[in-house]
Amino acid sequence: MASSNIRYGAGVSREIGMDLQNLGARNVCLMTDQNLCRLPPMTAVLESLGKNGVAFKVFDNVRVEPTDSSFKEAISFAKKDSFDVFVAVGGGSVIDTCKAANLYSCHPEADFLDFVNAPIGKGRPVTNALKPLIAVPTTAGTGSETTGVAIFDYEPLKAKTGIASRAIRPTLGIVDPLHTLSMPERVAANSGFDVLCHALESYTALPYSQRAPCPTNPIYRPAYQGSNPISDVWSRHALNVVAKYMKRAVRDPEDLEARSSMHLASVFAGIGFGNAGVHLCHGMSYPIAGNVKTHAARGYCVEHPLVPHGLSVVLTSPAVFSFTAPMCPERHLEAAEILGADVRQVKREDAGAVLADTLRQFLFDLQVEDGLAAVGYSRDDIPALVEGTLPQERVTKLSPRAHSEEDLSRLFESSMKLY
Amino acid sequence: MASSNIRYGAGVSREIGMDLQNLGARNVCLMTDQNLCRLPPMTAVLESLGKNGVAFKVFDNVRVEPTDSSFKEAISFAKKDSFDVFVAVGGGSVIDTCKAANLYSCHPEADFLDFVNAPIGKGRPVTNALKPLIAVPTTAGTGSETTGVAIFDYEPLKAKTGIASRAIRPTLGIVDPLHTLSMPERVAANSGFDVLCHALESYTALPYSQRAPCPTNPIYRPAYQGSNPISDVWSRHALNVVAKYMKRAVRDPEDLEARSSMHLASVFAGIGFGNAGVHLCHGMSYPIAGNVKTHAARGYCVEHPLVPHGLSVVLTSPAVFSFTAPMCPERHLEAAEILGADVRQVKREDAGAVLADTLRQFLFDLQVEDGLAAVGYSRDDIPALVEGTLPQERVTKLSPRAHSEEDLSRLFESSMKLY
Ligand SMILES: NC(=O)c1ccc[n+]([C@@H]2O[C@H](COP(=O)([O-])OP(=O)(O)OC[C@H]3O[C@@H](n4cnc5c(N)ncnc54)[C@H](O)[C@@H]3O)[C@@H](O)[C@H]2O)c1
Ligand SMILES: NC(=O)c1ccc[n+]([C@@H]2O[C@H](COP(=O)([O-])OP(=O)(O)OC[C@H]3O[C@@H](n4cnc5c(N)ncnc54)[C@H](O)[C@@H]3O)[C@@H](O)[C@H]2O)c1
Ligand SMILES: [Fe+2]
Ligand SMILES: [Fe+2]
Repeated sequence: MASSNIRYGAGVSREIGMDLQNLGARNVCLMTDQNLCRLPPMTAVLESLGKNGVAFKVFDNVRVEPTDSSFKEAISFAKKDSFDVFVAVGGGSVIDTCKAANLYSCHPEADFLDFVNAPIGKGRPVTNALKPLIAVPTTAGTGSETTGVAIFDYEPLKAKTGIASRAIRPTLGIVDPLHTLSMPERVAANSGFDVLCHALESYTALPYSQRAPCPTNPIYRPAYQGSNPISDVWSRHALNVVAKYMKRAVRDPEDLEARSSMHLASVFAGIGFGNAGVHLCHGMSYPIAGNVKTHAARGYCVEHPLVPHGLSVVLTSPAVFSFTAPMCPERHLEAAEILGADVRQVKREDAGAVLADTLRQFLFDLQVEDGLAAVGYSRDDIPALVEGTLPQERVTKLSPRAHSEEDLSRLFESSMKLY
Repeated sequence: MASSNIRYGAGVSREIGMDLQNLGARNVCLMTDQNLCRLPPMTAVLESLGKNGVAFKVFDNVRVEPTDSSFKEAISFAKKDSFDVFVAVGGGSVIDTCKAANLYSCHPEADFLDFVNAPIGKGRPVTNALKPLIAVPTTAGTGSETTGVAIFDYEPLKAKTGIASRAIRPTLGIVDPLHTLSMPERVAANSGFDVLCHALESYTALPYSQRAPCPTNPIYRPAYQGSNPISDVWSRHALNVVAKYMKRAVRDPEDLEARSSMHLASVFAGIGFGNAGVHLCHGMSYPIAGNVKTHAARGYCVEHPLVPHGLSVVLTSPAVFSFTAPMCPERHLEAAEILGADVRQVKREDAGAVLADTLRQFLFDLQVEDGLAAVGYSRDDIPALVEGTLPQERVTKLSPRAHSEEDLSRLFESSMKLY
C-alpha cells in the first residue's frame, strides 16, 4: 500500500506559490480547462503565484473527459518548453491530462502507445524521472490527486483506457474544499457518484488473498491489489461520508460542511481504490463513455457529446452489485446498511437485491437519468458495449465474480432502465 | 499527510530476498537484537536472502530501548562498511537503530547531536540522500515502519529524545503477522499499549486548525500536524481493533487472527500518530523510561533495568485523559465507548473520569503493574520526572490542554498507584 502526500484545509491552496518557490520552480506548466480558467480555484492559484513571483505558462485547453488527441495537444505544449514543475487545477480531466504531459515530456523518445495499458498499448514501465506535479482538485470525485492513473478515451476503439504507473502519481495534492463551492449541481452529483462507486467497487473487489496467479516476484505486484484490510478502512469510511453528506452537497452549493466532507471522501476513496482497484462498474463505463453519440451532459459547460464519468459508472451499479453480491453478501449488505437500508431481517441471498434497490432509490432522489436508454443507448448497442468492455481486463478481473460475455450483455441490458 | 509503503500478509517477508535483488543490493546491512537473532522472524529473512544470493552483514547488537551510545555503536558498524540497503528485523528498538545507522552513515561529517530534536540537539535538516531501508516489524506496537522518527535514551539527561525527519522513514514496511507469534506475553501487552496510546493521543491531540502559530511557509509545517480528519480515521480504526483483539492477542500467543489484527492496528495507529502526533502520555514517558533505576522488565529477555516503552506510556494514561477530557469531552467519551464503557447516561463533564476508569479496568485485566510506584518511583522522583518532561515540547505542545509544571507534577502523582 502506498498513499500520497495530501494537504487539506480551507484556503490551503493559497500556499501554492510558496510550495513552488520551495521546489525552486523557474518555469511552471499550469494546466486547467476553458471553464475553470475564469473561476475562483484558478484565480486563487494565480494570485498566489503572482504574490510569490513564480514564473509560469498556462495551458487551458484541457478537454473535459480527455481523448488521445487532447492528451497529445497538452503533451506537445509541454514538450515545446522546458518546464520544471507541473500544476493541475481542475477535476480528473485536468489532473489526468497534466500527468500525461509530464510523463511524455520527460520521455521525449516514447511513442504515445508505449505507456498505455496493455492490450491497447504496450504498458512499458516508466524509467525516466518525472518533474514534480502538484494537483489541486476542484471536483469531489476522481481522487486522481492520489492515484498513479491517467484515463483517456482512445478514439480509434471508442473506449476509455489509461496509463497506470506509480511514477505519474502527483507529488502533492492540495485539497482545498473552498474550490468545490463553484461546482454546478450536476458536476457535484456525477463526481460524487464516482466517489460512491470507487468506495463500493474497492470494498467488494476480489480479496487480495484470492487474486491468482500470485506474482512470482514482488516487482510484478499490480497497482490494483484487490480488497485488503487497509483499503477496506478507506472505502468503508468514504461510503459513510457519501451516505451522510452527498445529498446535501449536491442540493446546496453553499453547504460548506457537506461539500468539504465530500471533498475529503474523494481523497479517501481514491486511496482505497488506488490500492484495491475497481471492477465492473468502471470496466463497463469505459465503452459507455466512449460510444457516446449525441448525449449532451445536463448542466455541463461543454460543447461535445458526453456521458460524464461518474454518470457512466453509476448507471450500471444496481445491475453490477446484484450480480456480484452472492460472492460476498455480508459486504453488500453492510454497504446497503450504510446507505440507509434496514437490513435486520434480510437474508444473505437477498443482499444483491437490497443493495440494488437502495442504489436505485439513491439515484432517483438525486434525479439521475433513467438508465442507459436515457443517455442514448438501445439494445442494438449492447454488442459494441460488451466488446468495449473486454479489453478492460485490468479492472474487470478484480470483480469478485467471474463473468462471461453473456453476463456482460445481461448487465448492460438490465441497466437500460432503472426506475 | 503522507504515509508509507506497506506490504501486508502472512508470509510476505519471504519475498524480501527478491525485493533486495530488485533494488540491486550488493551489500546489505541487516540489523536485529540478541534475542531475535535466533527466532523465526530472523530465520525467515535469512533464508530468503540466502535463496536469492543476496550478500549481507549482520549487526545483532541492538539495545532493547536504545541509548545514544548504543545508537553510536550501530552507526560506527554502518560507517565502517559501504552498505547499499538497510534491513531492520525487530521491534521499534531495532527499526529506530537502523534508521539512525542509515542516516549518520550517509552524513559522515555530522556530529551526533546535529540531527537530534531541539532543544537537546540541533534539529538540523537532513540534506543527503539516504539508502533504502526495509523495516520488518516483529512487535505489534510502535508503528516505526511507517514513521520518520527514531527514539533513543539520551543518557546525559536521563530522558528519551529522538530524531524526526521524513528522510529516515522506511522505504518499505513488510508487515508479516506470522512474525508476531513468537512475542512473549508481556512484549505483546506492552507493545499493544503503545498502539492504544498512539491511537488515543493522536485522536485527542490539539486539532490541526488550532495549532498556533500558523507556519508562514508550508516548508515549516511540522511532521506532527495535530488531529485532523485523515488521522482521525486511522486512530479511531486502530482503537476499535485494540478494543476487539488486544486481550485475546496478549493471552493466547497462537491466536493468529488476534495477533494479525493487532499487527495491522500498529500500522494504522502509526500512520495516525505519525501524522497527527502524540502528546502527554508520550511526553511524560520519556523521563519515566530514562530515569529507571533497578526495575527489571517482567517477561523480557534483557539484562539492563528497563521500563518498556509501552508500559512507560500507558501508566499515566488514566491521569492524562482525565486531565485533557474537558477540552474535547465527545472524543474522550467516544474512546471510552469503543473500549467497552456504557456511556449513554454519562454527562460531558464526566467524560474524563469515565475514560480513566475504563482504562484502569483494561490495564487491570491485562495485569499491568500498579502504577509508577510499581516500577520503582516514589514522590521524591517527581521533580526529576517533571524536569525530564519539559524538553519534550515537540510532543507535549500537542496536548489539547495547556499545562504548567504543577499540572505535570499532579499527573505524575496521580499515576503512582492505579488500582
Ligand atoms: N485518474 C484517476 O484516478 C481517475 C479516476 C476516476 C476518473 N478519472 C477521470 O476523470 C475525468 C472526470 O473528472 P471529474 O469528474 O473530476 O470532472 P471533469 O474534470 O471532467 O470536470 C467536469 C466539468 O466540471 C467543471 N468543473 C470542475 N470543477 C469545477 C468547479 N470547482 N467549479 C465549476 N466547474 C467545475 C469542469 O470545468 C468541467 O466542465 C474522466 O475523464 C474520468 O475518466 C480519473
Ligand atoms: N519510531 C517510532 O515511531 C517509535 C514509536 C514508538 C516507540 N518507539 C520506540 O521503540 C522502542 C520499543 O519498541 P518495541 O515496543 O517494538 O519493542 P522492542 O524492539 O524494544 O523489543 C522488546 C523485546 O521484545 C523482543 N521481541 C520483539 N519482537 C519479538 C518477537 N516477534 N518474538 C520474540 N521476541 C520479540 C525483543 O527482542 C526485545 O527483547 C522504544 O525504544 C520506543 O521508544 C519508536
Ligand atoms: Fe472513477
Ligand atoms: Fe509509542
